[in-house]
Amino acid sequence: MDFVSIIERKKRGEELSADEIRAFAAGAADGSVKDYQLSALLMAIRLNGMTDRETRDLTLAMAASGDMLRPEVGGVPVDKHSTGGVGDTTTLILAPLVAACGGKVLKMSGRGLGHTGGTIDKMESIPGMRTTMPEEEFVRAVREIGCCVVGQSAQLAPADKRLYALRDVTATVDSVPLIASSILSKKFASGAGAIVLDVKTGSGALMPTEEDSIALASAMVRIGALSGRKITAVISGMEEPLGSHVGNALEVKEAIDVLSGRCDDRLPLTRVSVYLASHMLVLSGVAPGLKQAREMLWARLHDGSGLKKLREMIARQGGDPRVCDDTSLLGTAPVKLEVLCPEDGFLAATDCTRLGYAAQRLGAGRASKEDVLDLRVGFVMHRRIGDRCRRGENVCTVHASDEKSAARAAGEILSALTFSAAPCPPSRLIWDVVDENGVRKPGEDELG
Amino acid sequence: MDFVSIIERKKRGEELSADEIRAFAAGAADGSVKDYQLSALLMAIRLNGMTDRETRDLTLAMAASGDMLRPEVGGVPVDKHSTGGVGDTTTLILAPLVAACGGKVLKMSGRGLGHTGGTIDKMESIPGMRTTMPEEEFVRAVREIGCCVVGQSAQLAPADKRLYALRDVTATVDSVPLIASSILSKKFASGAGAIVLDVKTGSGALMPTEEDSIALASAMVRIGALSGRKITAVISGMEEPLGSHVGNALEVKEAIDVLSGRCDDRLPLTRVSVYLASHMLVLSGVAPGLKQAREMLWARLHDGSGLKKLREMIARQGGDPRVCDDTSLLGTAPVKLEVLCPEDGFLAATDCTRLGYAAQRLGAGRASKEDVLDLRVGFVMHRRIGDRCRRGENVCTVHASDEKSAARAAGEILSALTFSAAPCPPSRLIWDVVDENGVRKPGEDELG
Repeated sequence: MDFVSIIERKKRGEELSADEIRAFAAGAADGSVKDYQLSALLMAIRLNGMTDRETRDLTLAMAASGDMLRPEVGGVPVDKHSTGGVGDTTTLILAPLVAACGGKVLKMSGRGLGHTGGTIDKMESIPGMRTTMPEEEFVRAVREIGCCVVGQSAQLAPADKRLYALRDVTATVDSVPLIASSILSKKFASGAGAIVLDVKTGSGALMPTEEDSIALASAMVRIGALSGRKITAVISGMEEPLGSHVGNALEVKEAIDVLSGRCDDRLPLTRVSVYLASHMLVLSGVAPGLKQAREMLWARLHDGSGLKKLREMIARQGGDPRVCDDTSLLGTAPVKLEVLCPEDGFLAATDCTRLGYAAQRLGAGRASKEDVLDLRVGFVMHRRIGDRCRRGENVCTVHASDEKSAARAAGEILSALTFSAAPCPPSRLIWDVVDENGVRKPGEDELG
Repeated sequence: MDFVSIIERKKRGEELSADEIRAFAAGAADGSVKDYQLSALLMAIRLNGMTDRETRDLTLAMAASGDMLRPEVGGVPVDKHSTGGVGDTTTLILAPLVAACGGKVLKMSGRGLGHTGGTIDKMESIPGMRTTMPEEEFVRAVREIGCCVVGQSAQLAPADKRLYALRDVTATVDSVPLIASSILSKKFASGAGAIVLDVKTGSGALMPTEEDSIALASAMVRIGALSGRKITAVISGMEEPLGSHVGNALEVKEAIDVLSGRCDDRLPLTRVSVYLASHMLVLSGVAPGLKQAREMLWARLHDGSGLKKLREMIARQGGDPRVCDDTSLLGTAPVKLEVLCPEDGFLAATDCTRLGYAAQRLGAGRASKEDVLDLRVGFVMHRRIGDRCRRGENVCTVHASDEKSAARAAGEILSALTFSAAPCPPSRLIWDVVDENGVRKPGEDELG
């Protein structure tokens, strides 16, 4: 097939055939199409778009460009994917909770890049934890325990890997069909039968506006329907860190705290985790409806069986399960510095992307793929948007490797916070739910 | 400068700064920007366009990416550029004629590619002819004789060379700002002070419609005005080969025939050559107006001083000037085959691009840059659109290297001709003229 004619057709705004899209994905995977031709097509797609049919075909072709898992886990393999957030450690809470309810969570996660963290990095703060395992071994873990979280293998959707790297350097990241097909191709290849997508929106998110987030979520739900996969997308707020803890070991600690029942049930991280988990239980057929799913999840959270699952999962993956009882085993940064509130008032807003970059520069995240992390560092927020703060009060504790980086982070964090004299409302947690029936606002009772 | 942010801005449809465009051209010339980033930007330009200011800046930056000639030729260096045609050998007629009138024609020409021929290839059918000469030598030739035609040096606009090669394989050829800046950057770099552009339109042209041709012509005229160069563009018809002779030696023969006065003054090739030449004389200040220019040119054609100039130019470039008196010295193809008219009627239309490819496959042109030409082959049309033809009459003589290729070409030529029972009008020669005053139709008297 003549690749120039494929670029030509997309340039003219025409719809590509399934054969043309398969040639695109295959050429990306096997290297037979040059980078400069792929990037010209990526830009044409970014500017002229793709129909759902084209996006579905691209998703399936990229999934089929490498290994396709057909995991026998004794149920519908269910997965959750977040578009990336700050202090967003829902995976480590919901995976054990869903497993404790009888769900089968086979999760392949990524590493952090830019201002957002990655589950695989967080898990590596647990002493001994393995994040790469042979397929047979992690499938058995899911079958027997109900959950396992490993890194993506190099053989998963290699076409996506090449296109993703090119998009980053050709300004073609922000395309709904390209984002949707990239996310879903990896989920399809890893064998997920049901997928809950957590599309973040707000100052810390890839998609800053609700409108853009709904467009992306809706596209992914439609691609799921066209591909025979059950997908529900949740639009959740990223106007501030979701959990109070930001940083790898710090976020694992917070997840353990939540599962141990030591935290208030109204904690946003807990509520969003339970909400996403409830959709996972319904989509994979474990619970008949959201109400029943919620009741099961809260019961498993309160009776400690969620934490028990996490302990089992950690042990199975080679990690030290005692971290669930003594989080100091996760390691502690040597320097702590308090960020003091400069005025009486209310926390009105955060520049959440800047907060993420403050954590990255402390050593919790990567500026480039080669960077080595300090898993102990990060910060803990003591105030959320809408909270009253008095002058001189500690609003955030920085955990750093040295005094200098602590001081820099404290300055960066303070400059990312906006205070107001007048009271302000808390940030919204769950903005919308998108499924095959369309977009809706969640009822207040669903979030309880 | 961060190249991704330049792509990002053009992707969003924003106007690039002169600095950004210089970074683009410099990165293309010195190799510091990767092919995949250049091609993403080329596609963004193709789809989102460029303002005249951007196109001017790109033209100047590509011109400045290599050698910039400042030729001292004793007058305004004037050049003519054609967007490419079939049987389009105006250069070899108008360059000597303009020189005979006192103009200074410094012409850097290209080689043929695809279905169109190139002046440099044609000239090489003259025994001994050199088409590469040291700058000093060809500038002196222009100063002393008034004309010299050489190939473009590798140091001329290297940024354009790289982008041109990329555009060909990324479906980004058909962009007015990219075509305009590519053509003009080479003309600016070779030191042309006045430029007449021959924008071909019709079935054998890069721009098949008059509307597209006017858009390209107007863009180039505006870029000239913004760059302090005098440019006039002529839209001329390419619905059929301009001359009756198609092929390298055959076209040189026809040019010599025209300059020798052996042909009818109404011959389309002669009329278009004189018309383009008249604009060259006016633009470079040799003649005060088109009327005076035309009178000078016809006089030099009829008194043989045009042919005398061609003889001088050939001799100065190392060629055998006796070809001007005995065109058989150009070489003759061994096989001739007549294409017979299949029915009584009129020649109604030609698929001129297919005619060009028929000549290419005979060996007169290149499918890829490495192809070696047979300079003797081609064909001679005996009918033009609108001419009556009777069944069995010879409408075209094929000149070939062997019987097999002759027979194939005869079939290809016949299938590119459309006959009709009803009389049809001749094809239009000069469609429009575009200069700083806008677009106009040429008066009948201008074409006499």
